[in-house]
Order: sequence, then C-alpha cells, then structure tokens
Amino acid sequence: MTSATHHQTQIVADPDVPIVRIIREFDAPVEKVYRAHVDPDLVAQWMGPRSTRMRIDQWDARTGGSWRYVASDGDGEYGFRGCFHELRPNELIVQTFTWEGMPDGVALEKLVLEDLGNGRTRLTATSLVDSFEGRDGFLASGMEVGVNEGYEKLDDILARS
Amino acid sequence: MTSATHHQTQIVADPDVPIVRIIREFDAPVEKVYRAHVDPDLVAQWMGPRSTRMRIDQWDARTGGSWRYVASDGDGEYGFRGCFHELRPNELIVQTFTWEGMPDGVALEKLVLEDLGNGRTRLTATSLVDSFEGRDGFLASGMEVGVNEGYEKLDDILARS
Repeated sequence: MTSATHHQTQIVADPDVPIVRIIREFDAPVEKVYRAHVDPDLVAQWMGPRSTRMRIDQWDARTGGSWRYVASDGDGEYGFRGCFHELRPNELIVQTFTWEGMPDGVALEKLVLEDLGNGRTRLTATSLVDSFEGRDGFLASGMEVGVNEGYEKLDDILARS
Repeated sequence: MTSATHHQTQIVADPDVPIVRIIREFDAPVEKVYRAHVDPDLVAQWMGPRSTRMRIDQWDARTGGSWRYVASDGDGEYGFRGCFHELRPNELIVQTFTWEGMPDGVALEKLVLEDLGNGRTRLTATSLVDSFEGRDGFLASGMEVGVNEGYEKLDDILARS
C-alpha cells in the first residue's frame, strides 16, 4: 500500500463577500487531479468523509451537463445536485451545488487548478452563496471533516494511479 | 394594437453582498410570465434592448439543462450562455449566466415569481457575483436600458397573448 503525503488544507472565510475558499496542494499533476474530479468512478471513491458512502446517481461532466449524488451513512441518505456551468480541462470547473435537504439554497462553485511544476498541483475551490449567514452556517456545519478526509482519500488515489 | 401598462422597474444594489436585485410587476398571471421566460420563441421576442436582435442558439429549459443565445446590433454579436440549475414551474428559475466576452465571469441568477392576485405578478430577479467591483461594473454598464426596454416588450407580449 502506498503511503501518500497529506498536505494541509486551508479553509478561509472571505471577509468581504459570502465565499468559502479552500486551498490544497497535491503531489500529482493537474491532469490527474482534474480527472479525479470529473470521472464519476473516481469521484465516488474519494469525495466526502470516511464515514459516508457515495453513490453517483447522475453524472454528465461537460459544459452544460448536470450531476446528482447520494451520500449515505448509518443515519440516512443525503442527496446533492447541480449543473456544470463550465468544464475547462485541467484548469477549471464551474458548477452549481444544492443539498436537497435545503432545496432553496444554491452555491456557485469554482474549482481552479494550477500547475506548480514537478508534478504538483494547487487546487483553489471557492463556494459563493447569497448571504453571510448561509456561508457561516456552512462553515459551522463540520464540513471540514469531509473536506480533509476526502482530500486524504484523493491523495491515496493519486499516489497509486 | 394593445397598449399595455408599463410598471416601473426597481434595480437595487444590495448593500451587504454583491447582488443586483431587479423587482418588477406585470399585469399578467404567473403562468404567463413564467412561460415567457422558458419558451424560447417568446424569450427571443422580448429579452434585451430594442436596438438588439436576439437569436436563441440552444435552449433546454429544464432542471439540469443549458442555454445559449446571441444578441446582435449594428456593431457586432454578443454570446451569452449558462446552465439551468432548477426550474420550478410558475415559481422559480435558478440559472448561471456568462457573457462570452468575459468568459471567467459567472453570475448565479435566481428569478422568483409571486402571485399578487387579480392576474398580477411580482418578479424578483437576483444576480449574485463574486465581487463588488464586478457587480458595480455591471450596474454601470447601461444594463438598465436592456432591462427596462425588455420588460416593456414583455408587457406587450403578455397583453396580447
């Protein structure tokens, strides 16, 4: 079993606008990090906390496509869905995001990948919502567990692929 | 020819978040106002300023669908595109919006229709972007001409349909 290096994840609340910004480096080239975000078989393996199983219900990863997945743990099932505004291979993914338990809440998510050279990549993911209350509620929800554990699983996938 | 009443359009810059909010009443029931936003033949007739011709290039008005149209005037052609995050008939349309001349700029747009009774409807359209500079640039662009003239054309369509 490969032992991957786990970089620290920064999760930052923007002071001026209702944005959460997540910054993380990976010891893998942008092509591999991008593929792990658009290939549904790979997404299902790493996204979310370790306590959760992920089932991809619909996945049409192209500009103008849409997606839906269901996370399940011992307590229940949680559906999430959105549309892909733009996919720019190895550079950018812009999509919408709704947790179906709060169907009127929508985030606009932007994922940017930067080639740091030597097979390393910096990922910056921003999530924009329409109120600071909503943003701060998201930050207080324990989301960092899923983010951190998900990226650790992603490190492992990148190291062995 | 029917002479429709033209209500005033409010265009408001939110003080706390980078949102433009547009509020407008129509002397028509929500069903008709909604249809005029999802039927591409109707959209092409009213959207944008009077000086502009609108050509719908792609229009898949369903949750998870996408859209593209091209506006042309004497000076050139301007493409716009996005995806439909959610369509909730006669109530809500959530979509993304990009002007292709500025392909990294994305707005999250939410259109809410309220039944005011007596065949009247209030429309509230919010456009959320990721910076106040971007929002204020949009407000300073002369966008109110297209909004006002577009809704006057829409009044006329609603009055004769």
